[in-house]
Formats: sequence, C-alpha cells, structure tokens
Amino acid sequence: MQKSVIIVAGGSGKRMGSEIPKQFIELNKRPVLMRTIDKFYAYDAQIEIVVVLPMNLIPIWDRACLEYNFKIKHKVAIGGESRYHSVKSGLFAVTPGSLTAIHDGVRPLVSVETISRCFKVAEEKGNAIPAIQPTESVRAITGTGNRVLQREDVQLIQTPQVFVWEQLENAYEQEFTTEFTDDASVIESYGFRIHLVEGNRENIKITTPTDMIFAKLYFESESSSSE
Amino acid sequence: MQKSVIIVAGGSGKRMGSEIPKQFIELNKRPVLMRTIDKFYAYDAQIEIVVVLPMNLIPIWDRACLEYNFKIKHKVAIGGESRYHSVKSGLFAVTPGSLTAIHDGVRPLVSVETISRCFKVAEEKGNAIPAIQPTESVRAITGTGNRVLQREDVQLIQTPQVFVWEQLENAYEQEFTTEFTDDASVIESYGFRIHLVEGNRENIKITTPTDMIFAKLYFESESSSSE
Repeated sequence: MQKSVIIVAGGSGKRMGSEIPKQFIELNKRPVLMRTIDKFYAYDAQIEIVVVLPMNLIPIWDRACLEYNFKIKHKVAIGGESRYHSVKSGLFAVTPGSLTAIHDGVRPLVSVETISRCFKVAEEKGNAIPAIQPTESVRAITGTGNRVLQREDVQLIQTPQVFVWEQLENAYEQEFTTEFTDDASVIESYGFRIHLVEGNRENIKITTPTDMIFAKLYFESESSSSE
Repeated sequence: MQKSVIIVAGGSGKRMGSEIPKQFIELNKRPVLMRTIDKFYAYDAQIEIVVVLPMNLIPIWDRACLEYNFKIKHKVAIGGESRYHSVKSGLFAVTPGSLTAIHDGVRPLVSVETISRCFKVAEEKGNAIPAIQPTESVRAITGTGNRVLQREDVQLIQTPQVFVWEQLENAYEQEFTTEFTDDASVIESYGFRIHLVEGNRENIKITTPTDMIFAKLYFESESSSSE
C-alpha cells in the first residue's frame, strides 16, 4: 500500500522567544524540520512526503534546502488558519488512497520504531495514535479546585497519527470546530474509533526553550556516539 | 519559620535496567541524590534535610558521602514498604512544626525558583504542589476505549510538595491505602484542599534510561556553560 506523510510545520516561533521559527533552528547543524523528514525517509525511502508551511516561510525553506544541500524528495503545501486547515491543505497533495501519517514538524525525536508501529497498526485497524503513560501523578482541574486522576488511565498523545484514506477523506469534510484539538479528534468526531499504540518517550514536541535544549543535546550526543 | 525537606530516595533501580540504584548514578561526576540535595541547599543553606533510603543502601550512601567529599549536613531515615511509609519515617526525623517539603530524590532538575515558590505558597495556604500543563494532547482510557480530555484541565504533578506541619501530622496518621499515589493524595484524603503552583518543565522524575540521558546532558551542558 502507498504510504504518505504530511509533516505540519506551521509554527511561527512565538512561544520559543525566538526570531527564527523553531522548525528552522539547527539541531547539530541541520534544521529541526530536516531532522524530522530524515526519520520518515529512514523508515521508508519510498514514502511520499508533504511538508505544510505557512506561505511566508516557503521561500525560506526553499533556500534552506539549497544551503543545506537537502535532497530528500518532498512536496510543499501551504498552511492554513489552524492545524485542521493545514492538514486539509496537505491532504490535497497526497496520492488518494495512501495510508497517511500526520506528523508534527517539531518532533524530530520520533523513533523509526514508533513510525513503523503506527503504520502497521493503522493498516490493520484503520488508524493508530502513538501515546505514552505519564511518569508523573496527574490531576484534573475542576470547577471547585482539582482532583487526582489514576495515572494508568491517562495517555499523553504524540504523532505520527496514521489513518487509512477512507477515514481522512470523510473526516476532513466535516465543518471546522475548535474542538478539533488534534488529528485524532477530527477522526473521532466523525465517529471512527481511535486506536492507541506505544510511542517513544523522547518523542517530545519541541515547544519551549527547554525542549530545544534537550533536543540539541540529544542530537549532539547521538552524533558523538556514532563517530 | 523552620523549613525542612524530606528527600525520598527509595528506588531500587529496576526500571532503569541498571545495577546501580538510580539515585547513585553520576550526573556530571556527582550522584543524582547529591545533585538533588544541592538544590535545596542552594535555596536555603539553613534548611533541615532528611534523606530517606532503603536500609541496604545506607552504608553505600555513607561511603559515597566520604568518596565525593559531600559536606552538606543531613539526617538519614530508613525507607519503608511504600512511598507513604517512607515519608512517614522521614517525618519522625523532622523538627515538629516545620514547614516541610517532600521531594523525590530523582528530581535533581528542580529549579530553586520552583522550591521557593512552593515554600512561599504553602506558608500562606497550607500546602503547595508544583504542576505543569502537558504540551501533548491528552486522552483518558475508558471502559470501551478512550476519549480526548481538554489539555487545559490536566496538570502533571511534580515535587517538592510542601505542607504546613498540621496537615502532615494529621494526614500521616491515617491508615495506609493503595489510593495514596503521592503525597498530595494523602493530604487530600484527610480533607485538606490541594493548592497547585507552577513547576518547572525540566523538573523530570528520572525514571527511564531516556530520562537519565536527558539529565546527564543537562548537567554536562550546565557545567560547560559556567566554565
């Protein structure tokens, strides 16, 4: 079955306190977004790759690809108002019928094993969403204060979230609502059941400067251990 | 007001796949547990420090203190069957009436600001529990599958959890139940209301080998940036 991945790289970098959008910040000499693409290419060199970028960043990405001599074949789609709209834009560039992953551009620490697990389960069950159990205690905020949740019952959701084409083409025809907090919630809202699979703990979404420090250190250590 | 901290270091290292209990693994040339104690000493050199260790590790800790020339004054208490029992053992070594923090021995990345914030709020409100909002989407496991939770309503709980003496002396008289998943849950079970304060994102509980890699890299980078 044809496999595709939509890599959503819509962030503007505001939460990083950085002028450079975080998908362009270097991790051991290569931008975050290239590191992310590398992982899917390592999983399957034949995978169809669609990168979704805000319009104003597309020329910057094109130039970066030249500067870094980045040769992995990919299409570029224009990002939209929200995650939902960006994914929908990416879907137009995907070969119809593909088993399709949706992945955050700022998750370069995803493991090839996680990618492989998600595609495998999605092909069997219709979709696969990687998740990990928190190592922390968890509390829920309530109207009057807060209460403890059973940690075993809580899952932190990662990407890539992989879906068969039938689920995507139907669910992304729905009218947008702010309840679409991630890709799985769009699919779930249409009525499909969500299947969770094991993610990998280091597969963080680079959101804060601390996350970026961790990711930098991780890639530096990976490169020094392979020398 | 007298301030105290009970540092619970009861882990046996099984989840790390390591022969060395994780509180003794070196982070940039000093064991995890010393790094953790350093943070409370940096917050307040007058703080009373009680370290709770399993009986069989106490001679190893004593020898490590000599080997590393570790001079920060502290008492040692013997750990129990569960977290609850270890904390209770630590409480016997604390000066009665203290504003008392309970902290995980394997959280050396707590910031002095977080410690300070917790003591300050606990003095005003009776207790303070540091927490952060997850950066991930969150799902709850249900009887029939899973469902999305509103991320804004979920908090990941850290330590130090700080309490006024009255709350500790009453709550730790309760009979033990397996519902005591952390220190706050013991206090809450007695009927006190829990106050959440902002933690710091890098304040991870070192649980897996990946966490240890992050913590090592963090301390190495901290030391190289201060040279």
